[in-house]
Amino acid sequence: MQIIRFMDENGEVHQGTEVSGNIAMVLKGDLISGLEKTGRKTIVAQILAPVEPPAIFCIGLNYRSHAEETNMPLPKYPVVFMKNPASVIGQDMPIVIPESCKNPPQVDYEVELAVVIGKPARNVAPEKALDYVAGYCVGNDVSARIWQMQGGGNQWVRGKTFDTFCPLGPHLVTADEIPDPDHLNLECRLNGTLMQTGNTSDMIFSTRKLIAFLSEDTTLLPGTVILTGTPSGVGYSRKPPVFLKSGDRLEMTIESIGTLVNVVW
Amino acid sequence: MQIIRFMDENGEVHQGTEVSGNIAMVLKGDLISGLEKTGRKTIVAQILAPVEPPAIFCIGLNYRSHAEETNMPLPKYPVVFMKNPASVIGQDMPIVIPESCKNPPQVDYEVELAVVIGKPARNVAPEKALDYVAGYCVGNDVSARIWQMQGGGNQWVRGKTFDTFCPLGPHLVTADEIPDPDHLNLECRLNGTLMQTGNTSDMIFSTRKLIAFLSEDTTLLPGTVILTGTPSGVGYSRKPPVFLKSGDRLEMTIESIGTLVNVVW
Repeated sequence: MQIIRFMDENGEVHQGTEVSGNIAMVLKGDLISGLEKTGRKTIVAQILAPVEPPAIFCIGLNYRSHAEETNMPLPKYPVVFMKNPASVIGQDMPIVIPESCKNPPQVDYEVELAVVIGKPARNVAPEKALDYVAGYCVGNDVSARIWQMQGGGNQWVRGKTFDTFCPLGPHLVTADEIPDPDHLNLECRLNGTLMQTGNTSDMIFSTRKLIAFLSEDTTLLPGTVILTGTPSGVGYSRKPPVFLKSGDRLEMTIESIGTLVNVVW
Repeated sequence: MQIIRFMDENGEVHQGTEVSGNIAMVLKGDLISGLEKTGRKTIVAQILAPVEPPAIFCIGLNYRSHAEETNMPLPKYPVVFMKNPASVIGQDMPIVIPESCKNPPQVDYEVELAVVIGKPARNVAPEKALDYVAGYCVGNDVSARIWQMQGGGNQWVRGKTFDTFCPLGPHLVTADEIPDPDHLNLECRLNGTLMQTGNTSDMIFSTRKLIAFLSEDTTLLPGTVILTGTPSGVGYSRKPPVFLKSGDRLEMTIESIGTLVNVVW
């Protein structure tokens, strides 16, 4: 099932499915205990991000192709950082370039498979890991490269967590529809030009391995999002580098999921 | 006012004040819209962390004395990383050493002033920053040093965010009782021995500056916790190094706030 979160004309937030134009069928329940169709259709005034995560774990350098383009050695363990949950935006919402990231330009795009945890996960074995997944969506790990690399102590969080730096969407596709997250094509287009292309089979640590690793003595609460890393083709490793600017349009597509669209303000 | 969060004998969670023995007066309302005394007293079955943060921002190397002991240059900008909100524990709850941190021992303590944001903060000027603080508590930025330093890509999050690695407590002291967070003595005792001592006046970036910096184009939601860094005396920079082991007892005291006590499992 494809599930959106949205606001109706009265400002009430719902989950919905069977979207047609600006109409959706309202779902009742929640991702954890299960969602059911109500039969009731309503107007979608504003699509929201498909989840409100209690935590966002991000994995760096997780595609062989991306590790190569950044001249970084292949990591022995997943490279883990986090984003502020308040940085999440949904389909069609603008990515806003912060004042401190304008001169010189530094804001970059990263298409990523976003995994949404469906039930509390702790010390989960890799072979059981997908049982803990509610579903998948497309994620964009927006990154301010100067802050990321030189902001302070080589810690990436500052450059990764400005408001609007975590687009998620366009909807959640439930896990039953994606039995194999390890063979999905993904791509990123900037103003129609193909910038990134890859397949999740290029991931150094698979979705199963990431859930197992991250949950070692660590509780992943329902709704927790894992951004699983990005393939090659990001802006700052291009010659010359490409950074996002006002008016840009990003379209990020993952096979079997959909296309996340955001413009840049 | 000193505010605790606690569970009563029926498993209901309340906020309370005027704690005497295992009895507290129940408060109604919340930190954001304001808390009022109800006059009703009840049994405190279990003290919880004083907040359930939507995000935890942590600052590294923020005391001159600690930057010196780790041989790190003074940072030009605050060094920012995050912890998983699910890692929070409260007063008297055990710090559990993860399996992957036992051989060799590597888990360390860091006493820190924890700032709790009370209303949405974004692009806040330093001189207005304390208006956004609900209150303060004692925090322990528990750190697995090998994961922190060598875990992956020099990113600290992995070593900082195992379950129980964010003790907060013993209560929240409302901001009106601490007009000047820049001159507070803090200390950490391990099994009665003084290990860390310092004053928040040694912070490279003050509480006001940290709120201003972190809120630049970044929304700090109510309940967000800022761990403001630790003074010198942490275990791994001692000769020989000292790491936490089962049975250890940590007492962390900050002037005008109180003492956070946790044992190690």
